[in-house]
Amino acid sequence: TIMAALLEQYRKRIQTELDRVVDFWMKYSHDEQYGGFFTCIGKDGKIYDELKYVWLQGRQVWMYCRLYRTVERFHRPEVLEAAKSGGAFLQRFARVQSSDGPGKCAFCLTRDGRAVKVQRTIFSECFYVMAMDELARVTGNEAMQADAESMMDQLVHWVRVDSSGLGRPQMPGDPPVNSMAVPMMLLCLVDQLTEGREKQAQKYRELGDWCVKQILQHVQRNDKAILENVSMDGKEIPGCQGRLQNPGHALEAGWFLLKYAKAQDDTKLQTLAVEMFMDVPFHTGWDKQHGGLFYFLDADGHCPTQLEWNMKLWWPHCEALISYLMAYSYLKEPALLDRFKQVYDYTFSHFPDEEHGEWFGYLSRQGEVVLDFKGGPFKGKPFKTHESRTCKSVLCTCESSRVLMLVEPQKSALLG
Amino acid sequence: TIMAALLEQYRKRIQTELDRVVDFWMKYSHDEQYGGFFTCIGKDGKIYDELKYVWLQGRQVWMYCRLYRTVERFHRPEVLEAAKSGGAFLQRFARVQSSDGPGKCAFCLTRDGRAVKVQRTIFSECFYVMAMDELARVTGNEAMQADAESMMDQLVHWVRVDSSGLGRPQMPGDPPVNSMAVPMMLLCLVDQLTEGREKQAQKYRELGDWCVKQILQHVQRNDKAILENVSMDGKEIPGCQGRLQNPGHALEAGWFLLKYAKAQDDTKLQTLAVEMFMDVPFHTGWDKQHGGLFYFLDADGHCPTQLEWNMKLWWPHCEALISYLMAYSYLKEPALLDRFKQVYDYTFSHFPDEEHGEWFGYLSRQGEVVLDFKGGPFKGKPFKTHESRTCKSVLCTCESSRVLMLVEPQKSALLG
Repeated sequence: TIMAALLEQYRKRIQTELDRVVDFWMKYSHDEQYGGFFTCIGKDGKIYDELKYVWLQGRQVWMYCRLYRTVERFHRPEVLEAAKSGGAFLQRFARVQSSDGPGKCAFCLTRDGRAVKVQRTIFSECFYVMAMDELARVTGNEAMQADAESMMDQLVHWVRVDSSGLGRPQMPGDPPVNSMAVPMMLLCLVDQLTEGREKQAQKYRELGDWCVKQILQHVQRNDKAILENVSMDGKEIPGCQGRLQNPGHALEAGWFLLKYAKAQDDTKLQTLAVEMFMDVPFHTGWDKQHGGLFYFLDADGHCPTQLEWNMKLWWPHCEALISYLMAYSYLKEPALLDRFKQVYDYTFSHFPDEEHGEWFGYLSRQGEVVLDFKGGPFKGKPFKTHESRTCKSVLCTCESSRVLMLVEPQKSALLG
Repeated sequence: TIMAALLEQYRKRIQTELDRVVDFWMKYSHDEQYGGFFTCIGKDGKIYDELKYVWLQGRQVWMYCRLYRTVERFHRPEVLEAAKSGGAFLQRFARVQSSDGPGKCAFCLTRDGRAVKVQRTIFSECFYVMAMDELARVTGNEAMQADAESMMDQLVHWVRVDSSGLGRPQMPGDPPVNSMAVPMMLLCLVDQLTEGREKQAQKYRELGDWCVKQILQHVQRNDKAILENVSMDGKEIPGCQGRLQNPGHALEAGWFLLKYAKAQDDTKLQTLAVEMFMDVPFHTGWDKQHGGLFYFLDADGHCPTQLEWNMKLWWPHCEALISYLMAYSYLKEPALLDRFKQVYDYTFSHFPDEEHGEWFGYLSRQGEVVLDFKGGPFKGKPFKTHESRTCKSVLCTCESSRVLMLVEPQKSALLG
């Protein structure tokens, strides 16, 4: 059928992109001298800064392991070796404090592993958990798995019990906020730690349910908006912070929720994930004039205060691709595939670099490449939002590819 | 003569703009209920967030006082009253710690004055000093002047003796850096505190000289580049941070240096200020394709990692206008006036909002308005770089106007 042919065409293109992206990072990012990965890489593969960003170290280790474990053509010793080297670098250098508990991870390290910066958030630690758990899965190293879980328990403690270990003083005019990134990231980690493990599934079940509740609090304004920040009791908060929308983040939360709903066999949550976290951000976030997803929007239509609000970034498009394809694979609604197609067409005609491989990450509203590097530092922001694209595009194309593979066996059944 | 006519035309336009800008802030920004100033103001004057940013509170107090004191048509009771109200708000709410010394100032306050955020830098405190000293000058309040000086001494202690009071832990991979913003801002404060005061001029003389030395360390690469960050001993540092150029900042440093050179009657410094801090950033920073000054550049031509690197912001253009006009008024070189004219033409054809008054702050590389608010929050950045435009355009147009007024009496002598 036409649809099967289309899906096969998508699959092939994504496969090709994934290969090119992995080749790029295998070729240019490995630091043979100090271990770990360079993360600031120009369009042609040149290292333009030797700093090593910890999020990206963690993601790259995770990525290599996940590819090694789940995609046959990447089940190669050099992929595993690269992952192990990155894991060793992380274990040796990422932590900056370890007096009690596993302690904070640095956000950024020098080439030889000295801490440059520590963020007062949980995300470096989250990517540490992702990396260590996936590496433990491919190596069978139980101590490493315990390391990941111990960091996870520390994280959960900071988020749910006592945040003082993060080092951010509580200000009287700045009450705690439910920021979408936090429960979203924790739900992603629950998925990581529990996959195929009955004991862990039980251990983290309550946390998973809590994350879902926290994420659902971001559905606001009579189901018309997904807001990035809400109060701890799930109300809209005043000002720019309260009105901020990040369509890519909402779409990402969508597929995290959908995956969890599937695992729990929760059809009500499945419907919510699609209707709230896939439809709403698309309607608010798609640029009807120039195509692509805006980075930030204000729910009342004010101009966002982020200078980059109207730029088109690679990662929201990756999240959208995964979301719609996963939703289609579960629900088989043709409209979801149409949505996928719309995002696919924009994404694959704008982001890949045909000359040097890998993707550009940052386009103007009109779709021109504005920053042409392949990997860059995460720029600290009040709202955790934009991320260095390093492994994210790998991750996303891989995830898409994984989802496509999911679809494939059932293709005839699905498409008739 | 033609040139005199041209100067007069500039003066009139700047005067008109200044009036419109001051009107805008007088009309929309005053919080009659809690005191202080709203700083997040939409293009038509609507408050879109009630948060009060401390830099901008300080600047607005300073601006009103400076206008009241030096520009006759602003010598009106309502201008002074607004400044006093802002000063009272600052004195009452800006400080968050005062156990020993005057303590840190908040970066952002709620409408009713509760601290939202404290930065681990010196800039909120700098604008506090600016505000209090200028307010002391117009009110004759000596306690207020002492308050400003005591905060100044605290600042200098943090910068030159012990930075631990700022609360930023020193990381092993992140040695101290000479960031242009710091000596620049301190030099500006020296100018503020010493104007017309013999005792203070002596007290801060050594500090002023130190600031100049620190600023001059940013001249690098055989006088071909002004780098935003250098090592404490004045060497280029590796990576993006070391290669960062911020043309607007360099131009701003230029007129601070020039003013200081004039006060010290230092002709060598005067030449350096013009040749290094006015010529170099123009040659590297002017966009030959679309006009206007880039926000950030990399000295080796790599793509900067700041997403907004190619945007055109109002404030670098204001700094450039002040620089070239001041340099012209001192040196009378026609080339400096030509440079002024080039920046003037871009600035006045792009930034002013003819409909609602005040200026837009953020244009795309191509010169289209991308963010349309009149005042917005400062967005925290690893490098202190972009600032909410609130009072900066007022400040700058005023400064320009002041410089023009400087020029005016000597016009016939200057222009023949």
